[in-house]
Amino acid sequence: MSSTETPVHVLILAGGAGTRFWPASRAARPKQLLPLLGGEPLITATARRVLPLCARGGSAGWERLWIATGQHLVAPTRAALPDVAERRLLVEPAPRNTAPCIGWAAATIAREDPGAIVIVLPSDHHIADVPRFLEVLEAAVASARGGAITTIGIRPTHPETGFGYIEAEDAGAGSAAPRAVLRFVEKPSRERAAEFVASGRFLWNAGMFIFRAGDMRAAIRAHLPALAEGLDELDRAAALGAAAEAAAIERVFPRLPAVSIDHGVMEHVGGLAVVPGDFGWSDLGSWQSAWELSEKDERGNSAPAGSVLVDARGNHLVDLRAREGGADDGRVIALVGVEGLVVVETDDALLIVPRDRAQDVKHVVDALKARGQGRHT
Amino acid sequence: MSSTETPVHVLILAGGAGTRFWPASRAARPKQLLPLLGGEPLITATARRVLPLCARGGSAGWERLWIATGQHLVAPTRAALPDVAERRLLVEPAPRNTAPCIGWAAATIAREDPGAIVIVLPSDHHIADVPRFLEVLEAAVASARGGAITTIGIRPTHPETGFGYIEAEDAGAGSAAPRAVLRFVEKPSRERAAEFVASGRFLWNAGMFIFRAGDMRAAIRAHLPALAEGLDELDRAAALGAAAEAAAIERVFPRLPAVSIDHGVMEHVGGLAVVPGDFGWSDLGSWQSAWELSEKDERGNSAPAGSVLVDARGNHLVDLRAREGGADDGRVIALVGVEGLVVVETDDALLIVPRDRAQDVKHVVDALKARGQGRHT
Repeated sequence: MSSTETPVHVLILAGGAGTRFWPASRAARPKQLLPLLGGEPLITATARRVLPLCARGGSAGWERLWIATGQHLVAPTRAALPDVAERRLLVEPAPRNTAPCIGWAAATIAREDPGAIVIVLPSDHHIADVPRFLEVLEAAVASARGGAITTIGIRPTHPETGFGYIEAEDAGAGSAAPRAVLRFVEKPSRERAAEFVASGRFLWNAGMFIFRAGDMRAAIRAHLPALAEGLDELDRAAALGAAAEAAAIERVFPRLPAVSIDHGVMEHVGGLAVVPGDFGWSDLGSWQSAWELSEKDERGNSAPAGSVLVDARGNHLVDLRAREGGADDGRVIALVGVEGLVVVETDDALLIVPRDRAQDVKHVVDALKARGQGRHT
Repeated sequence: MSSTETPVHVLILAGGAGTRFWPASRAARPKQLLPLLGGEPLITATARRVLPLCARGGSAGWERLWIATGQHLVAPTRAALPDVAERRLLVEPAPRNTAPCIGWAAATIAREDPGAIVIVLPSDHHIADVPRFLEVLEAAVASARGGAITTIGIRPTHPETGFGYIEAEDAGAGSAAPRAVLRFVEKPSRERAAEFVASGRFLWNAGMFIFRAGDMRAAIRAHLPALAEGLDELDRAAALGAAAEAAAIERVFPRLPAVSIDHGVMEHVGGLAVVPGDFGWSDLGSWQSAWELSEKDERGNSAPAGSVLVDARGNHLVDLRAREGGADDGRVIALVGVEGLVVVETDDALLIVPRDRAQDVKHVVDALKARGQGRHT
């Protein structure tokens, strides 16, 4: 539907190791691989959502979808995305944060499609209004096509200290037109976050970036020269063939500067644009947000069919045990007289935590590591 | 150790169908078969506790231990009490409350030991001070040997409406000497229970009765003539041999009056005695009392070793799943920031309920029956 001129590629960032969704998330099963909001893993929903942007002619778009992930996640990631070709998986030999990975993708994509527009997206967010999301990305693609590295900014609803902020010209206006970025700001203190929200001039940085591959390469050259040199080395190796390229990735990648694209590039580069995104966004940061986005009964409980809820309100029940005998193994979960609990079952763990303490789940992961139970983390 | 004159037999009443300990207790696995306070089922602890009273000479006492239970509980009851001979299991063809069952036991025991003293005990109570318990029972046996049907009265600690009460002469005095019962009172209203406790004249009826077999038979003849006739018929059949006896039980028992020993006999008979029992008694009426009697950590949590407790207080965790691979299957139960919860896991159910609402667990059983999930009840 888009891009009659230059092809659009999508890079989904899918590394990471979740602790906030323990026991569902594990080192080998981070958040994007979990069906936190229904039947399919978050990364599958993410890919399906953006497919229309990469489609061209009769193609569905899968061939312009790229996934950056870690060695240990290749198998489950491929299982979640069976239509992505193996060569579209950019498997990082070592975790180096987002700048090397985005640079590597930009270089690789440019070798196939020199004028390509690249959309970088997190793999594990929730988008409520998908048509609006695609409209906003179309606007960002148009902006990137004009030469501006472009990002999406989410209008803040509260003084969140877990996100970066983007100060923008005319941030408060309603339209989806791109506007100039004044500055990128790292995760602020509670006080500064409150000021940002009150000012009306700031948007949340949702980690979505849209650019021409060449523009990102130039920005990296200007602000992260060590990364630019590494990418040049990958280019030279790729010209010698697939084996040389693979060897170069193993050799070069682990030595690239481990820095985020925000900190390494976006905070320094000029001429950035931002498109406000009003499509019902959530980073799904905890069991609390998973509950907020779940289907609930009239008493606010989100629970598998068959659960017995007696005088129970606002609870979030998640059953992620591997099922024997189909979708219903006949196990009964019964809550009596409890309110606002998160209850998560996996094959090897059971978690019970009040919704408003969901962020403390990381302490369980710490405790398990401390007592040498790494296989549960 | 006791009874140089007349042998002492113990009858443990082990029928029933627990709903208050769902999901641990089930129709086919009532409370007495559960290890609610550690390693062994309550009925096993009950039998082991009283064994010294039935021992004589070199015998351990098992041959004078009788178990009254229902057809559906024979196999698990035998598994819990492998030392009880099959002929000591009085298997009721149909549930008829306690009077027929106690009468049947008295008749059967008297045919073996005409002068026998019978101690009737519930199968599912907790006794903290076992030596004191045995002393109290010895005193009750001495009282019964003198011709008084004797019971044990527990000094009430609160106006409980779930128990019957016994008004006694001199109920407040400290000694374990038998005293005269003035009256048996059925479960009272909250108001009357408060009056009883305030008066100092009442004890709780804990369902323990001690009597000469012949005295109980005479009391039944006086107050439950239909039951007495049925027992006479069993006696006549038993004289003809085991096959005739078994046939008579099947024929006669289901037609006996379904009445409790309290209501059918104890409330009417004269010359009753009661021995106050100060041995740390609990009827283990709910998960709340199971928690009270459990070993707890310094924050009041009772939980299996290996549980992860982060800022958790006063919780009661029970894991009754059948274990694969020995005592520890490596499953982790994690509680974060929760207080006063009961959490019970079985192979086919998970229950979460605040301790102070433990009595509402029966509503889960009702809900499951209503939706046709009888196999979970």
